[in-house]
Amino acid sequence: MTDAAPGPLAIICGAGKFPFAVADAVIRRGRRVVLFALAGWADPEDVARYPHHWGRLAQLGRFRRLARQDGCRDVVFIGALTRPSIAKLRVDLTTLRLLPRIIAAYRGGDDHLLSGVGRIFEHLGFRLVGAHEVAPEILVPEGRLGRHAPTARDQADIAVGQALIAAMGRFDVGQAVVVAANRVIAVEAAEGTDRMLARIAELRRDGKLHVPDHCGVVVKAPKPTQDRRFDLPSVGARTVEAAAAAGLAGVAVEAKGAITADLQDLIRAADAAGLFLIGIPPAVPGSVP
Amino acid sequence: MTDAAPGPLAIICGAGKFPFAVADAVIRRGRRVVLFALAGWADPEDVARYPHHWGRLAQLGRFRRLARQDGCRDVVFIGALTRPSIAKLRVDLTTLRLLPRIIAAYRGGDDHLLSGVGRIFEHLGFRLVGAHEVAPEILVPEGRLGRHAPTARDQADIAVGQALIAAMGRFDVGQAVVVAANRVIAVEAAEGTDRMLARIAELRRDGKLHVPDHCGVVVKAPKPTQDRRFDLPSVGARTVEAAAAAGLAGVAVEAKGAITADLQDLIRAADAAGLFLIGIPPAVPGSVP
Repeated sequence: MTDAAPGPLAIICGAGKFPFAVADAVIRRGRRVVLFALAGWADPEDVARYPHHWGRLAQLGRFRRLARQDGCRDVVFIGALTRPSIAKLRVDLTTLRLLPRIIAAYRGGDDHLLSGVGRIFEHLGFRLVGAHEVAPEILVPEGRLGRHAPTARDQADIAVGQALIAAMGRFDVGQAVVVAANRVIAVEAAEGTDRMLARIAELRRDGKLHVPDHCGVVVKAPKPTQDRRFDLPSVGARTVEAAAAAGLAGVAVEAKGAITADLQDLIRAADAAGLFLIGIPPAVPGSVP
Repeated sequence: MTDAAPGPLAIICGAGKFPFAVADAVIRRGRRVVLFALAGWADPEDVARYPHHWGRLAQLGRFRRLARQDGCRDVVFIGALTRPSIAKLRVDLTTLRLLPRIIAAYRGGDDHLLSGVGRIFEHLGFRLVGAHEVAPEILVPEGRLGRHAPTARDQADIAVGQALIAAMGRFDVGQAVVVAANRVIAVEAAEGTDRMLARIAELRRDGKLHVPDHCGVVVKAPKPTQDRRFDLPSVGARTVEAAAAAGLAGVAVEAKGAITADLQDLIRAADAAGLFLIGIPPAVPGSVP
Protein backbone atom coordinates (compact mmCIF):
# COMPACT_ATOMS: atom_id res chain seq x y z
CA MET A 1 0.00 0.00 0.00
CA THR A 2 2.36 2.72 -1.19
CA ASP A 3 1.05 6.28 -1.47
CA ALA A 4 1.81 7.83 -4.84
CA ALA A 5 3.28 10.80 -3.00
CA PRO A 6 6.10 12.86 -4.42
CA GLY A 7 9.11 12.47 -2.11
CA PRO A 8 9.37 12.05 1.61
CA LEU A 9 6.98 13.64 4.07
CA ALA A 10 8.36 16.49 6.17
CA ILE A 11 7.10 16.15 9.73
CA ILE A 12 7.56 19.23 11.91
CA CYS A 13 7.66 17.80 15.40
CA GLY A 14 6.41 19.44 18.57
CA ALA A 15 6.33 17.71 21.95
CA GLY A 16 4.78 14.37 22.83
CA LYS A 17 4.42 11.00 21.12
CA PHE A 18 2.25 12.04 18.19
CA PRO A 19 5.04 12.97 15.76
CA PHE A 20 6.50 9.46 16.07
CA ALA A 21 3.12 7.70 15.89
CA VAL A 22 2.52 9.59 12.65
CA ALA A 23 6.03 8.88 11.34
CA ASP A 24 5.65 5.14 12.05
CA ALA A 25 2.26 5.03 10.35
CA VAL A 26 3.57 6.82 7.26
CA ILE A 27 6.63 4.54 7.08
CA ARG A 28 4.36 1.48 7.38
CA ARG A 29 2.53 2.74 4.30
CA GLY A 30 5.83 2.77 2.41
CA ARG A 31 6.59 6.47 2.41
CA ARG A 32 9.80 8.00 3.70
CA VAL A 33 9.76 10.74 6.33
CA VAL A 34 12.12 13.53 7.38
CA LEU A 35 11.61 14.92 10.84
CA PHE A 36 12.09 18.64 11.47
CA ALA A 37 12.42 18.53 15.22
CA LEU A 38 11.67 21.73 17.14
CA ALA A 39 14.36 22.29 19.77
CA GLY A 40 12.84 22.59 23.20
CA TRP A 41 9.75 20.61 22.27
CA ALA A 42 10.58 17.40 20.37
CA ASP A 43 12.03 14.46 22.30
CA PRO A 44 15.70 14.03 21.21
CA GLU A 45 15.77 10.29 21.94
CA ASP A 46 12.77 9.56 19.73
CA VAL A 47 13.90 11.99 17.04
CA ALA A 48 17.24 10.16 16.71
CA ARG A 49 15.41 7.05 15.41
CA TYR A 50 14.44 8.82 12.14
CA PRO A 51 16.12 10.90 9.42
CA HIS A 52 15.91 14.36 10.94
CA HIS A 53 17.05 17.95 11.27
CA TRP A 54 16.87 20.12 14.35
CA GLY A 55 15.48 23.61 14.03
CA ARG A 56 13.51 26.33 15.67
CA LEU A 57 10.03 27.62 15.15
CA ALA A 58 10.99 30.91 13.58
CA GLN A 59 13.63 29.51 11.21
CA LEU A 60 11.52 29.21 8.13
CA GLY A 61 14.44 29.93 5.78
CA ARG A 62 16.39 27.01 7.20
CA PHE A 63 13.34 24.80 7.00
CA ARG A 64 12.71 25.71 3.35
CA ARG A 65 16.31 25.03 2.37
CA LEU A 66 16.61 21.66 4.13
CA ALA A 67 13.15 20.41 3.14
CA ARG A 68 13.82 21.25 -0.52
CA GLN A 69 17.22 19.49 -0.37
CA ASP A 70 15.49 16.39 0.94
CA GLY A 71 12.86 16.55 -1.79
CA CYS A 72 9.94 17.18 0.57
CA ARG A 73 6.87 18.91 -0.76
CA ASP A 74 4.25 17.79 1.76
CA VAL A 75 4.51 19.03 5.34
CA VAL A 76 2.77 17.79 8.45
CA PHE A 77 2.80 19.82 11.63
CA ILE A 78 2.22 17.68 14.72
CA GLY A 79 2.79 17.60 18.44
CA ALA A 80 2.11 19.88 21.37
CA LEU A 81 3.43 23.42 21.27
CA THR A 82 2.93 25.81 24.11
CA ARG A 83 1.85 29.02 22.46
CA PRO A 84 5.35 30.49 22.18
CA SER A 85 6.26 33.91 23.46
CA ILE A 86 6.93 36.03 20.38
CA ALA A 87 9.82 37.73 22.16
CA LYS A 88 11.64 34.43 22.65
CA LEU A 89 11.63 33.32 19.01
CA ARG A 90 15.00 33.37 17.22
CA VAL A 91 13.93 34.76 13.93
CA ASP A 92 15.82 34.07 10.66
CA LEU A 93 15.75 36.25 7.55
CA THR A 94 12.97 34.45 5.70
CA THR A 95 10.88 34.53 8.84
CA LEU A 96 11.64 38.21 9.23
CA ARG A 97 10.25 38.91 5.77
CA LEU A 98 7.12 36.96 6.68
CA LEU A 99 6.79 38.75 10.00
CA PRO A 100 3.79 40.91 9.06
CA ARG A 101 1.88 37.73 8.13
CA ILE A 102 2.99 35.98 11.30
CA ILE A 103 1.99 38.88 13.50
CA ALA A 104 -1.39 39.05 11.79
CA ALA A 105 -1.79 35.32 12.46
CA TYR A 106 -0.71 35.77 16.06
CA ARG A 107 -3.53 38.12 16.92
CA GLY A 108 -6.66 36.26 17.88
CA GLY A 109 -7.24 32.71 19.06
CA ASP A 110 -5.41 29.47 18.41
CA ASP A 111 -7.34 28.68 15.24
CA HIS A 112 -6.43 31.97 13.76
CA LEU A 113 -2.76 31.47 14.66
CA LEU A 114 -2.65 28.01 13.18
CA SER A 115 -4.48 28.81 9.96
CA GLY A 116 -2.09 31.72 9.49
CA VAL A 117 0.86 29.36 9.90
CA GLY A 118 -0.70 27.10 7.26
CA ARG A 119 -0.90 29.92 4.76
CA ILE A 120 2.71 30.85 5.49
CA PHE A 121 3.93 27.33 4.63
CA GLU A 122 1.95 27.41 1.42
CA HIS A 123 3.50 30.75 0.62
CA LEU A 124 6.92 29.05 0.97
CA GLY A 125 5.93 26.47 -1.67
CA PHE A 126 4.91 23.53 0.52
CA ARG A 127 1.62 21.70 0.80
CA LEU A 128 0.41 21.48 4.36
CA VAL A 129 -1.43 18.21 5.03
CA GLY A 130 -3.19 16.98 8.14
CA ALA A 131 -1.54 14.28 10.24
CA HIS A 132 -4.81 12.34 10.10
CA GLU A 133 -4.71 12.45 6.29
CA VAL A 134 -1.35 10.68 6.10
CA ALA A 135 -1.94 8.51 9.19
CA PRO A 136 -5.68 7.96 9.56
CA GLU A 137 -5.05 5.30 12.22
CA ILE A 138 -4.45 8.07 14.78
CA LEU A 139 -8.10 9.16 14.54
CA VAL A 140 -10.40 7.97 17.32
CA PRO A 141 -13.00 5.67 15.71
CA GLU A 142 -16.75 5.75 16.33
CA GLY A 143 -18.52 3.57 18.86
CA ARG A 144 -17.85 2.09 22.26
CA LEU A 145 -14.13 1.53 22.50
CA GLY A 146 -13.54 -0.15 25.83
CA ARG A 147 -15.28 -2.62 28.09
CA HIS A 148 -17.54 -0.10 29.85
CA ALA A 149 -20.59 1.60 28.36
CA PRO A 150 -22.15 4.98 29.16
CA THR A 151 -25.46 4.97 31.06
CA ALA A 152 -28.49 6.95 29.92
CA ARG A 153 -27.42 9.76 32.29
CA ASP A 154 -23.94 9.74 30.80
CA GLN A 155 -25.45 9.89 27.31
CA ALA A 156 -27.46 12.95 28.33
CA ASP A 157 -24.30 14.58 29.74
CA ILE A 158 -22.47 13.84 26.49
CA ALA A 159 -25.23 15.52 24.46
CA VAL A 160 -25.07 18.65 26.64
CA GLY A 161 -21.29 18.81 26.40
CA GLN A 162 -21.26 18.36 22.65
CA ALA A 163 -23.89 21.06 22.16
CA LEU A 164 -21.97 23.46 24.43
CA ILE A 165 -18.75 22.98 22.46
CA ALA A 166 -20.71 23.66 19.27
CA ALA A 167 -22.27 26.81 20.77
CA MET A 168 -18.84 28.12 21.80
CA GLY A 169 -17.32 27.25 18.44
CA ARG A 170 -17.23 30.66 16.88
CA PHE A 171 -15.34 31.99 19.90
CA ASP A 172 -12.31 29.82 19.20
CA VAL A 173 -12.36 28.59 22.80
CA GLY A 174 -11.52 25.19 24.33
CA GLN A 175 -12.07 21.76 22.95
CA ALA A 176 -13.30 20.06 26.08
CA VAL A 177 -15.99 20.46 28.70
CA VAL A 178 -17.09 18.40 31.67
CA VAL A 179 -20.78 17.78 32.33
CA ALA A 180 -22.00 15.90 35.40
CA ALA A 181 -25.67 15.07 36.00
CA ASN A 182 -26.74 17.67 33.45
CA ARG A 183 -24.60 20.42 34.97
CA VAL A 184 -21.60 21.96 33.20
CA ILE A 185 -18.82 21.90 35.78
CA ALA A 186 -15.77 22.86 33.72
CA VAL A 187 -14.94 24.48 30.40
CA GLU A 188 -11.46 24.28 28.97
CA ALA A 189 -9.77 27.38 27.60
CA ALA A 190 -6.04 28.15 27.82
CA GLU A 191 -5.33 25.64 30.60
CA GLY A 192 -5.67 22.43 28.56
CA THR A 193 -7.62 19.27 29.33
CA ASP A 194 -5.33 17.82 31.98
CA ARG A 195 -5.38 20.96 34.10
CA MET A 196 -9.12 21.27 33.70
CA LEU A 197 -9.59 17.73 34.98
CA ALA A 198 -7.12 18.34 37.82
CA ARG A 199 -9.25 21.33 38.83
CA ILE A 200 -12.34 19.14 39.19
CA ALA A 201 -10.45 16.69 41.38
CA GLU A 202 -9.26 19.64 43.49
CA LEU A 203 -12.72 21.24 43.82
CA ARG A 204 -14.15 17.92 44.98
CA ARG A 205 -11.33 17.39 47.44
CA ASP A 206 -11.86 20.90 48.85
CA GLY A 207 -15.59 20.31 49.24
CA LYS A 208 -16.37 23.04 46.69
CA LEU A 209 -18.09 20.69 44.28
CA HIS A 210 -20.54 17.99 45.21
CA VAL A 211 -20.96 15.48 42.45
CA PRO A 212 -21.62 11.80 43.10
CA ASP A 213 -18.63 9.57 42.56
CA HIS A 214 -18.29 8.05 39.09
CA CYS A 215 -20.56 10.71 37.61
CA GLY A 216 -19.80 13.06 34.79
CA VAL A 217 -18.27 12.97 31.35
CA VAL A 218 -15.41 14.83 29.72
CA VAL A 219 -16.42 15.59 26.16
CA LYS A 220 -13.79 16.47 23.58
CA ALA A 221 -14.61 17.66 20.09
CA PRO A 222 -12.94 19.89 17.54
CA LYS A 223 -14.21 23.43 17.30
CA PRO A 224 -16.47 23.86 14.28
CA THR A 225 -14.06 26.47 12.88
CA GLN A 226 -10.95 24.38 13.47
CA ASP A 227 -8.34 23.87 10.76
CA ARG A 228 -8.00 20.11 11.11
CA ARG A 229 -4.60 20.10 9.48
CA PHE A 230 -3.10 21.24 12.74
CA ASP A 231 -4.89 20.96 15.85
CA LEU A 232 -7.33 18.16 16.32
CA PRO A 233 -7.92 17.60 20.03
CA SER A 234 -5.91 14.68 21.34
CA VAL A 235 -6.61 12.04 23.96
CA GLY A 236 -4.30 9.60 25.64
CA ALA A 237 -3.99 7.37 28.66
CA ARG A 238 -3.19 10.47 30.73
CA THR A 239 -6.54 12.03 29.80
CA VAL A 240 -8.31 8.90 31.00
CA GLU A 241 -6.32 8.81 34.22
CA ALA A 242 -7.05 12.50 34.91
CA ALA A 243 -10.76 11.86 34.26
CA ALA A 244 -10.69 8.96 36.71
CA ALA A 245 -8.93 11.11 39.32
CA ALA A 246 -11.69 13.72 38.82
CA GLY A 247 -14.28 11.05 39.69
CA LEU A 248 -15.87 11.03 36.24
CA ALA A 249 -17.67 8.11 34.62
CA GLY A 250 -16.11 8.32 31.21
CA VAL A 251 -14.58 10.02 28.22
CA ALA A 252 -16.45 10.90 25.03
CA VAL A 253 -14.53 11.99 21.98
CA GLU A 254 -15.87 13.10 18.63
CA ALA A 255 -15.12 10.20 16.28
CA LYS A 256 -12.61 11.14 13.56
CA GLY A 257 -12.44 14.56 15.24
CA ALA A 258 -9.73 13.70 17.75
CA ILE A 259 -6.43 11.89 17.58
CA THR A 260 -4.69 9.40 19.85
CA ALA A 261 -1.09 8.22 19.59
CA ASP A 262 -1.92 4.68 20.67
CA LEU A 263 -5.55 3.56 20.62
CA GLN A 264 -4.91 0.21 22.30
CA ASP A 265 -3.06 1.93 25.13
CA LEU A 266 -5.97 4.36 25.51
CA ILE A 267 -8.51 1.54 25.67
CA ARG A 268 -6.41 -0.38 28.22
CA ALA A 269 -6.23 2.75 30.42
CA ALA A 270 -10.03 3.24 30.27
CA ASP A 271 -10.74 -0.41 31.06
CA ALA A 272 -8.28 -0.38 33.94
CA ALA A 273 -9.77 2.81 35.41
CA GLY A 274 -13.36 1.54 35.04
CA LEU A 275 -14.27 4.41 32.71
CA PHE A 276 -16.22 4.21 29.49
CA LEU A 277 -14.54 5.46 26.35
CA ILE A 278 -16.68 6.27 23.36
CA GLY A 279 -16.29 7.79 19.91
CA ILE A 280 -19.41 9.85 19.30
CA PRO A 281 -20.76 11.03 15.93
CA PRO A 282 -20.29 14.75 15.24
CA ALA A 283 -22.95 17.10 16.63
CA VAL A 284 -25.70 17.99 14.20
CA PRO A 285 -25.43 21.77 13.75
CA GLY A 286 -28.21 23.64 15.52
CA SER A 287 -29.46 20.63 17.47
CA VAL A 288 -30.50 21.22 21.07
CA PRO A 289 -30.17 18.38 23.58
CA MET B 1 -38.45 56.93 52.35
CA THR B 2 -40.38 54.12 53.97
CA ASP B 3 -41.49 51.23 51.80
CA ALA B 4 -45.15 50.39 52.26
CA ALA B 5 -44.12 46.80 52.89
CA PRO B 6 -46.06 44.56 55.24
CA GLY B 7 -43.81 43.68 58.17
CA PRO B 8 -40.09 43.15 58.42
CA LEU B 9 -37.98 41.62 55.66
CA ALA B 10 -36.68 38.10 56.26
CA ILE B 11 -33.10 37.86 55.02
CA ILE B 12 -31.76 34.34 54.65
CA CYS B 13 -28.02 34.80 55.03
CA GLY B 14 -25.30 32.81 53.34
CA ALA B 15 -21.61 33.63 53.59
CA GLY B 16 -19.91 36.95 52.85
CA LYS B 17 -20.73 40.60 53.38
CA PHE B 18 -23.75 40.85 51.09
CA PRO B 19 -26.42 39.90 53.64
CA PHE B 20 -25.32 42.75 55.88
CA ALA B 21 -24.96 45.27 53.04
CA VAL B 22 -28.54 44.43 52.08
CA ALA B 23 -29.76 44.56 55.70
CA ASP B 24 -28.16 47.99 56.21
CA ALA B 25 -29.67 49.35 52.99
CA VAL B 26 -33.13 48.07 53.91
CA ILE B 27 -32.86 49.53 57.43
CA ARG B 28 -31.76 52.88 55.95
CA ARG B 29 -34.99 52.88 53.97
CA GLY B 30 -36.93 52.52 57.21
CA ARG B 31 -37.86 48.84 57.04
CA ARG B 32 -37.09 46.34 59.77
CA VAL B 33 -35.19 43.14 59.01
CA VAL B 34 -34.93 39.70 60.59
CA LEU B 35 -31.87 37.67 59.65
CA PHE B 36 -32.19 33.92 59.21
CA ALA B 37 -28.53 33.03 59.45
CA LEU B 38 -27.42 29.74 57.91
CA ALA B 39 -25.11 27.94 60.31
CA GLY B 40 -21.79 27.19 58.69
CA TRP B 41 -22.13 30.02 56.18
CA ALA B 42 -23.21 33.29 57.83
CA ASP B 43 -20.67 35.23 59.88
CA PRO B 44 -21.76 35.03 63.58
CA GLU B 45 -20.16 38.35 64.54
CA ASP B 46 -22.02 40.28 61.84
CA VAL B 47 -25.25 38.38 62.43
CA ALA B 48 -25.23 39.40 66.13
CA ARG B 49 -25.70 43.05 65.14
CA TYR B 50 -29.24 42.41 63.84
CA PRO B 51 -32.44 40.71 65.05
CA HIS B 52 -31.79 37.15 63.96
CA HIS B 53 -32.39 33.42 64.20
CA TRP B 54 -29.92 30.69 63.41
CA GLY B 55 -31.03 27.82 61.23
CA ARG B 56 -30.04 25.33 58.61
CA LEU B 57 -30.74 25.06 54.95
CA ALA B 58 -33.09 22.12 55.14
CA GLN B 59 -35.13 23.38 58.11
CA LEU B 60 -37.97 24.90 56.21
CA GLY B 61 -40.52 24.11 58.93
CA ARG B 62 -38.51 26.03 61.49
CA PHE B 63 -38.06 28.90 59.06
CA ARG B 64 -41.78 29.08 58.31
CA ARG B 65 -42.71 29.08 62.01
CA LEU B 66 -40.19 31.76 63.06
CA ALA B 67 -40.73 34.00 60.03
CA ARG B 68 -44.51 33.93 60.57
CA GLN B 69 -44.05 34.73 64.29
CA ASP B 70 -41.98 37.76 63.34
CA GLY B 71 -44.58 38.90 60.81
CA CYS B 72 -42.35 38.44 57.76
CA ARG B 73 -43.94 37.85 54.40
CA ASP B 74 -41.14 38.92 52.06
CA VAL B 75 -37.99 36.84 51.92
CA VAL B 76 -34.60 37.67 50.46
CA PHE B 77 -32.01 34.99 49.93
CA ILE B 78 -28.49 36.38 49.79
CA GLY B 79 -24.86 35.42 50.25
CA ALA B 80 -22.56 32.73 48.97
CA LEU B 81 -23.56 29.10 49.42
CA THR B 82 -21.37 26.28 48.31
CA ARG B 83 -23.71 23.91 46.51
CA PRO B 84 -24.46 21.78 49.55
CA SER B 85 -24.09 18.04 49.60
CA ILE B 86 -27.59 16.62 49.80
CA ALA B 87 -26.40 13.90 52.16
CA LYS B 88 -25.19 16.43 54.74
CA LEU B 89 -28.45 18.37 55.07
CA ARG B 90 -30.32 17.96 58.37
CA VAL B 91 -33.81 17.71 57.07
CA ASP B 92 -36.86 18.72 59.14
CA LEU B 93 -40.41 17.42 58.62
CA THR B 94 -41.65 20.25 56.42
CA THR B 95 -38.56 19.91 54.29
CA LEU B 96 -39.11 16.16 54.11
CA ARG B 97 -42.60 16.68 52.71
CA LEU B 98 -41.11 19.03 50.10
CA LEU B 99 -38.31 16.63 49.27
CA PRO B 100 -39.63 15.54 45.87
CA ARG B 101 -39.70 19.21 44.78
CA ILE B 102 -36.25 19.83 46.22
CA ILE B 103 -34.77 16.81 44.50
CA ALA B 104 -36.34 17.87 41.22
CA ALA B 105 -34.78 21.31 41.71
CA TYR B 106 -31.44 19.75 42.57
CA ARG B 107 -31.06 18.02 39.23
CA GLY B 108 -29.57 20.27 36.62
CA GLY B 109 -27.55 23.46 36.89
CA ASP B 110 -27.48 26.22 39.47
CA ASP B 111 -30.27 28.21 37.86
CA HIS B 112 -32.54 25.25 37.98
CA LEU B 113 -31.70 24.63 41.64
CA LEU B 114 -32.28 28.22 42.61
CA SER B 115 -35.55 28.66 40.72
CA GLY B 116 -36.78 25.49 42.35
CA VAL B 117 -35.92 26.91 45.78
CA GLY B 118 -37.90 30.03 44.85
CA ARG B 119 -41.00 28.00 44.07
CA ILE B 120 -40.62 26.13 47.32
CA PHE B 121 -40.64 29.33 49.38
CA GLU B 122 -43.71 30.52 47.50
CA HIS B 123 -45.36 27.20 48.23
CA LEU B 124 -44.72 27.90 51.95
CA GLY B 125 -46.61 31.19 51.68
CA PHE B 126 -43.75 33.68 51.35
CA ARG B 127 -42.93 36.10 48.59
CA LEU B 128 -39.38 35.76 47.37
CA VAL B 129 -37.88 39.10 46.36
CA GLY B 130 -34.49 39.92 44.88
CA ALA B 131 -31.87 41.58 47.07
CA HIS B 132 -31.43 44.22 44.37
CA GLU B 133 -35.16 45.00 44.54
CA VAL B 134 -35.03 45.90 48.25
CA ALA B 135 -31.49 47.34 48.11
CA PRO B 136 -30.88 48.69 44.59
CA GLU B 137 -27.69 50.39 45.78
CA ILE B 138 -25.89 47.03 45.64
CA LEU B 139 -26.27 46.92 41.84
CA VAL B 140 -23.21 47.92 39.82
CA PRO B 141 -24.12 51.10 37.89
CA GLU B 142 -23.41 51.76 34.22
CA GLY B 143 -20.35 53.63 32.96
CA ARG B 144 -16.73 54.04 33.90
CA LEU B 145 -16.50 53.63 37.65
CA GLY B 146 -12.89 54.27 38.55
CA ARG B 147 -10.05 56.46 37.39
CA HIS B 148 -8.86 54.20 34.56
CA ALA B 149 -10.60 53.69 31.22
CA PRO B 150 -10.58 50.66 28.88
CA THR B 151 -8.60 51.01 25.64
CA ALA B 152 -10.07 50.15 22.24
CA ARG B 153 -8.49 46.68 22.54
CA ASP B 154 -10.06 46.22 25.98
CA GLN B 155 -13.42 47.29 24.55
CA ALA B 156 -13.09 44.63 21.84
CA ASP B 157 -12.23 42.01 24.48
CA ILE B 158 -15.27 43.07 26.50
CA ALA B 159 -17.53 42.60 23.46
CA VAL B 160 -16.16 39.10 22.83
CA GLY B 161 -16.59 38.12 26.48
CA GLN B 162 -20.12 39.42 26.68
CA ALA B 163 -21.12 37.62 23.49
CA LEU B 164 -19.58 34.36 24.74
CA ILE B 165 -21.49 34.54 28.02
CA ALA B 166 -24.67 35.11 26.02
CA ALA B 167 -23.90 32.15 23.72
CA MET B 168 -23.36 29.86 26.71
CA GLY B 169 -26.48 31.13 28.46
CA ARG B 170 -28.81 28.27 27.75
CA PHE B 171 -26.27 25.84 29.22
CA ASP B 172 -26.54 27.33 32.70
CA VAL B 173 -22.77 27.65 32.89
CA GLY B 174 -20.52 30.30 34.50
CA GLN B 175 -21.00 33.99 34.77
CA ALA B 176 -17.50 35.12 33.94
CA VAL B 177 -14.94 34.74 31.17
CA VAL B 178 -11.54 36.23 30.53
CA VAL B 179 -10.61 37.52 27.08
CA ALA B 180 -7.13 38.85 26.28
CA ALA B 181 -6.23 40.37 22.91
CA ASN B 182 -9.26 38.78 21.29
CA ARG B 183 -8.52 35.33 22.70
CA VAL B 184 -10.73 33.57 25.27
CA ILE B 185 -8.30 32.37 27.93
CA ALA B 186 -10.66 31.23 30.71
CA VAL B 187 -14.29 30.30 31.20
CA GLU B 188 -15.77 30.03 34.66
CA ALA B 189 -17.89 27.03 35.57
CA ALA B 190 -18.00 25.37 39.01
CA GLU B 191 -14.74 26.90 40.25
CA GLY B 192 -15.94 30.48 40.73
CA THR B 193 -14.36 33.74 39.57
CA ASP B 194 -11.53 33.93 42.08
CA ARG B 195 -10.22 30.47 41.25
CA MET B 196 -10.56 31.14 37.54
CA LEU B 197 -8.45 34.29 37.91
CA ALA B 198 -5.92 32.47 40.10
CA ARG B 199 -5.59 29.91 37.29
CA ILE B 200 -4.59 32.60 34.81
CA ALA B 201 -1.95 33.94 37.19
CA GLU B 202 -0.66 30.37 37.59
CA LEU B 203 -0.59 29.62 33.84
CA ARG B 204 1.36 32.80 33.24
CA ARG B 205 3.80 32.03 36.04
CA ASP B 206 4.33 28.51 34.64
CA GLY B 207 4.99 29.87 31.15
CA LYS B 208 1.89 28.10 29.80
CA LEU B 209 0.19 31.29 28.74
CA HIS B 210 1.83 34.19 26.98
CA VAL B 211 -0.25 37.32 27.25
CA PRO B 212 1.30 40.78 27.48
CA ASP B 213 1.19 42.30 30.92
CA HIS B 214 -1.81 44.49 31.69
CA CYS B 215 -3.79 42.88 28.88
CA GLY B 216 -7.13 41.14 29.10
CA VAL B 217 -10.50 41.69 30.69
CA VAL B 218 -12.62 39.66 33.05
CA VAL B 219 -16.23 40.04 31.98
CA LYS B 220 -19.05 39.21 34.38
CA ALA B 221 -22.68 39.14 33.36
CA PRO B 222 -25.75 37.25 34.51
CA LYS B 223 -26.76 34.28 32.42
CA PRO B 224 -29.72 35.13 30.19
CA THR B 225 -31.78 32.45 31.94
CA GLN B 226 -30.84 33.52 35.44
CA ASP B 227 -33.44 34.04 38.17
CA ARG B 228 -32.20 37.41 39.39
CA ARG B 229 -33.92 37.02 42.73
CA PHE B 230 -31.07 34.79 43.83
CA ASP B 231 -27.93 34.74 42.08
CA LEU B 232 -26.71 37.84 40.38
CA PRO B 233 -22.96 37.62 39.88
CA SER B 234 -21.06 39.58 42.50
CA VAL B 235 -17.86 41.58 42.39
CA GLY B 236 -15.75 42.94 45.18
CA ALA B 237 -12.30 44.25 45.95
CA ARG B 238 -11.08 40.64 45.93
CA THR B 239 -12.20 40.19 42.33
CA VAL B 240 -10.23 43.26 41.33
CA GLU B 241 -7.15 42.10 43.22
CA ALA B 242 -7.35 38.64 41.63
CA ALA B 243 -7.69 40.27 38.19
CA ALA B 244 -4.62 42.40 38.90
CA ALA B 245 -2.67 39.33 40.03
CA ALA B 246 -3.68 37.65 36.74
CA GLY B 247 -2.09 40.56 34.84
CA LEU B 248 -5.38 41.79 33.38
CA ALA B 249 -6.18 45.35 32.37
CA GLY B 250 -9.61 45.61 33.89
CA VAL B 251 -12.97 44.35 35.05
CA ALA B 252 -16.20 44.74 33.08
CA VAL B 253 -19.50 44.00 34.76
CA GLU B 254 -22.95 44.09 33.27
CA ALA B 255 -24.57 47.20 34.74
CA LYS B 256 -27.53 46.36 37.01
CA GLY B 257 -26.70 42.71 36.31
CA ALA B 258 -24.16 42.28 39.10
CA ILE B 259 -24.00 43.22 42.75
CA THR B 260 -21.29 44.60 44.97
CA ALA B 261 -21.39 44.91 48.75
CA ASP B 262 -19.46 48.19 48.77
CA LEU B 263 -19.12 50.12 45.52
CA GLN B 264 -16.72 52.73 46.91
CA ASP B 265 -14.46 49.99 48.23
CA LEU B 266 -14.56 48.31 44.81
CA ILE B 267 -13.62 51.53 43.01
CA ARG B 268 -10.80 52.20 45.47
CA ALA B 269 -9.40 48.71 44.83
CA ALA B 270 -9.52 49.18 41.04
CA ASP B 271 -7.87 52.59 41.19
CA ALA B 272 -5.17 51.30 43.53
CA ALA B 273 -4.45 48.30 41.28
CA GLY B 274 -4.37 50.42 38.11
CA LEU B 275 -7.29 48.49 36.59
CA PHE B 276 -10.28 49.91 34.82
CA LEU B 277 -13.69 49.10 36.22
CA ILE B 278 -16.72 49.55 34.02
CA GLY B 279 -20.44 48.87 34.11
CA ILE B 280 -21.41 47.81 30.59
CA PRO B 281 -24.90 47.84 29.08
CA PRO B 282 -26.49 44.39 28.65
CA ALA B 283 -25.58 42.48 25.48
CA VAL B 284 -28.04 42.87 22.64
CA PRO B 285 -29.41 39.36 22.00
CA GLY B 286 -28.04 37.84 18.82
CA SER B 287 -25.38 40.50 18.27
CA VAL B 288 -22.00 39.29 17.04
CA PRO B 289 -18.90 41.29 18.00
